[in-house]
Amino acid sequence: VNTTATTHESKGIVGILGGMGPLATIDFMRKMLDATPARNDQDHVPVVVSSVPQIPDRTAAFRGEGESPLDAMVASGRRLVRAGAALLVMPCNTAHLWFDELQQALGVPMLHLVDAALEDAVASVGAERRIGLLATDATLASGLYLNRRTPAGAAHDIHWQLPTADEMTRWVLPGIAAVKAGRLPEAGEPLTQAVLALQRRGAAAVVLGCTEIPLALDAAHVSLPLIDATASLARRAVAWSLGQQRLAGSTA
Amino acid sequence: VNTTATTHESKGIVGILGGMGPLATIDFMRKMLDATPARNDQDHVPVVVSSVPQIPDRTAAFRGEGESPLDAMVASGRRLVRAGAALLVMPCNTAHLWFDELQQALGVPMLHLVDAALEDAVASVGAERRIGLLATDATLASGLYLNRRTPAGAAHDIHWQLPTADEMTRWVLPGIAAVKAGRLPEAGEPLTQAVLALQRRGAAAVVLGCTEIPLALDAAHVSLPLIDATASLARRAVAWSLGQQRLAGSTA
Repeated sequence: VNTTATTHESKGIVGILGGMGPLATIDFMRKMLDATPARNDQDHVPVVVSSVPQIPDRTAAFRGEGESPLDAMVASGRRLVRAGAALLVMPCNTAHLWFDELQQALGVPMLHLVDAALEDAVASVGAERRIGLLATDATLASGLYLNRRTPAGAAHDIHWQLPTADEMTRWVLPGIAAVKAGRLPEAGEPLTQAVLALQRRGAAAVVLGCTEIPLALDAAHVSLPLIDATASLARRAVAWSLGQQRLAGSTA
Repeated sequence: VNTTATTHESKGIVGILGGMGPLATIDFMRKMLDATPARNDQDHVPVVVSSVPQIPDRTAAFRGEGESPLDAMVASGRRLVRAGAALLVMPCNTAHLWFDELQQALGVPMLHLVDAALEDAVASVGAERRIGLLATDATLASGLYLNRRTPAGAAHDIHWQLPTADEMTRWVLPGIAAVKAGRLPEAGEPLTQAVLALQRRGAAAVVLGCTEIPLALDAAHVSLPLIDATASLARRAVAWSLGQQRLAGSTA
């Protein structure tokens, strides 16, 4: 077997640490395809995926009610590194609570989902305006988005608009649960109500900080920009890989 | 990092040699999810995927007009083995023209897409009846399905019904091309015509031997069983993994 082709082809492989959950992993892969200017199969960026869903529940671990998912995430990440991944991404918001520990254990470059979403949010409205956030209880309570530093170059910190506890209970959490149960049509109405409430309180854009929400929320029903955090990450993963391939091409 | 969990979780990992093309890979992953009785993320079977689409064109190679894809397929398969895959599957019909060489080079168990489809076809109508086949020109001309041995236990060989050259040119190839170009609504009508022609000549079921065809063909418009070869392979991959996990559970 000739290995010359192998060396060439393995530039810029994106490793997707998936399985949290398996459907969100597939959705992310689809968003990477959508973000790629491709005329044929060969134009698409190379990815390796570890969708090994036997990872302890992230939300339960955050609540202190279950074991840590870190060991299983490290094992999954090592699989991707052995398979040739040069960059890792995780299409799951809650998993990012273990991002720093994971990156330290693996020693591989990783792109952070929240950084990708914040960059797109700030570019969409400017940092001096209010940005709404829809996410799970765990993502909000952990401060995953709220404590993340504003992207370099932004003039001001982001002014967040969050759902109230009542809006979470009535609209956001039932909407997410309906998507998880495969009842998408039921989820659109309550999630749209949650967006409109944020807009009434001054949000100029809304970040969808949960992989389930964009699956149900029809952008056609709202008049402000929606930033799908998963899509933001997918676009950056594609851009990184295409950049690596150009770099390899120019030095070959 | 504790490695006990890793040892346990890595039982029955299915390796998907994908990227041929990237969208068919995602479709196959979705069919594996659909074939799994799961109440939560953790119930889904573990998979690793190599979707590295920088593989020379399989149809061009079959026609003798391009380089062999074998080296790139072997490299992709080795990635999956390094990532922990204990079984390999390929959600691409044409790639199976290199199945035997690939299996020999990798030395890993593999499930054959055509065997999976033939088993389902025979189970659906019985081997003494006629079975239609819709596939690309290369799949038909190579005899990939036609020369494959009937599943063990079938009373008779399969009696194939193929599209005529005229039906291929008018319906099958334009239908497949429309799906590849993302124009799904245009593809349904010609592919349905092709199915009806096979039915008029006595086909009791039709095997869809091309990953693109099931994406467009609405089963509601035809009255005979359609066997989606990709779905047949997905069900067997899931069954293999669940079997490995039961085995590991009973000896633990």
